[in-house]
Amino acid sequence: MTRPLLRIDDPADPRIAGLVSIKERDLTGRQGRFIAEGTVVLRMLAAAHSARRGIAAEAILLLESRVFGLAELLAQFPPDVPLYVATSAVFDAIAGFNMHRGVLALGRRDAAPEQEALIAGLPQSSLVLAACGISNHDNMGSLFRNAAAFGADAVLMDMASCDPMYRKAIRVSVGSVLTLPFAREGGAAELIGRLQAADFVVWGLSPRGAVDITAIPPAPRTALLVGTEGEGLPEAILSQIHTARIRQRPGLDSLNVAMAAGIALHQVANINGRI
Amino acid sequence: MTRPLLRIDDPADPRIAGLVSIKERDLTGRQGRFIAEGTVVLRMLAAAHSARRGIAAEAILLLESRVFGLAELLAQFPPDVPLYVATSAVFDAIAGFNMHRGVLALGRRDAAPEQEALIAGLPQSSLVLAACGISNHDNMGSLFRNAAAFGADAVLMDMASCDPMYRKAIRVSVGSVLTLPFAREGGAAELIGRLQAADFVVWGLSPRGAVDITAIPPAPRTALLVGTEGEGLPEAILSQIHTARIRQRPGLDSLNVAMAAGIALHQVANINGRI
Repeated sequence: MTRPLLRIDDPADPRIAGLVSIKERDLTGRQGRFIAEGTVVLRMLAAAHSARRGIAAEAILLLESRVFGLAELLAQFPPDVPLYVATSAVFDAIAGFNMHRGVLALGRRDAAPEQEALIAGLPQSSLVLAACGISNHDNMGSLFRNAAAFGADAVLMDMASCDPMYRKAIRVSVGSVLTLPFAREGGAAELIGRLQAADFVVWGLSPRGAVDITAIPPAPRTALLVGTEGEGLPEAILSQIHTARIRQRPGLDSLNVAMAAGIALHQVANINGRI
Repeated sequence: MTRPLLRIDDPADPRIAGLVSIKERDLTGRQGRFIAEGTVVLRMLAAAHSARRGIAAEAILLLESRVFGLAELLAQFPPDVPLYVATSAVFDAIAGFNMHRGVLALGRRDAAPEQEALIAGLPQSSLVLAACGISNHDNMGSLFRNAAAFGADAVLMDMASCDPMYRKAIRVSVGSVLTLPFAREGGAAELIGRLQAADFVVWGLSPRGAVDITAIPPAPRTALLVGTEGEGLPEAILSQIHTARIRQRPGLDSLNVAMAAGIALHQVANINGRI
């Protein structure tokens, strides 16, 4: 490997300032920077960087003992991405004990696409996951992971949903936040309107849905819509779209939103021959 | 409500010693005690207590402002279960800030059933979720939540799996750990042997599974088996059972274990008319 290893001996070294104290704070929203942690996410960052779709790696920081085992992955980043290394003690002082698994990167996301433009660029045969009011970063990450696994073309959210570029959401998504196109903008009604105007059949998931999830018919363009944890989609929205339910035993809390989306995405991807 | 409210003014009061510092430690394994937190889990504890199937509530601790709103639920507990109340400051000192949502209970689980006995007591038409080497309490809780939602009769685990009575697993399960029969014992091979001896068709979930999950045929007794996070089920086990896969897009990490189990349980519950 010809890439130089830039040693960090001082946790306050300004070159890695963006990676300091990642547990206490999050970079999202600050000039489009984000934190990637762990090998799996670093691999997705390399893929996203290479694809030049608005995601770039700015710096990589590794525990020195991890460098050799990651040589092949590191070679996928262009040589102008600096590679910093640190001992375990320095690494822990930078990032917080045991927060990093020895693999961290600082990334940048350029100006996010607008929903209108993203929808206009989707293929004629499309599957979209839409989400309104998702407040939990684990759920957000899990929604992306499922969307990627079952071949969704994009994830669209309203502004009441949390930011998927948050460190934990990226990690739980196993990095698919970095590779799956998404746009977060406006309100739920506008989002539904945009999808319907682009000939998407919009199916809202709800315990009160009219149709069993296994009865959703194939369609060239399907959007699955999920709502806020706990409360789900409000009646005002359900009345404007098709609705589907996942049958379950009575007397229990309804399924977690990411679980419901996973089951629905699997079902719809299957009937539309996408997986 | 005729139940007396027992006021706690001292966080060191020995009557609520079992509920102190729940974030830092966990009671599981200590004389069969466990912690229930939040309204949803308290409701399941009431149901489990009433059913007299080896789960009992020993004490309830509420933020004083929560008492009135929970009157109906509290009435489901017998009068000999003490109800303690505390102010917000005392409650935080007992349980840790913001750990409790103002609703905590201490419970007891009697000697756990043995797998052999639990399997012998299952109905002729049965669905079982089996798990080997599950190490994460969130995943364990999520497996129970899915098993309950899709009508599994029991959850069976090997001893390499973590204890579902751990506080966080109970919470993530939305309390279904308290109502769904389970047994955790021995190794994976013994568990599979017991299920096969009881005429269960055992289907292991694996990205290398032979049959698509949607092609699993109906059967009077089906057991779905999932393996360790990350590595999944080893070849030595897969070679002894039927195997199924969940199709997904290539090039991504395989689905989270709880997600895979949820999709498989939904599928098998559907084809066997259980939901």
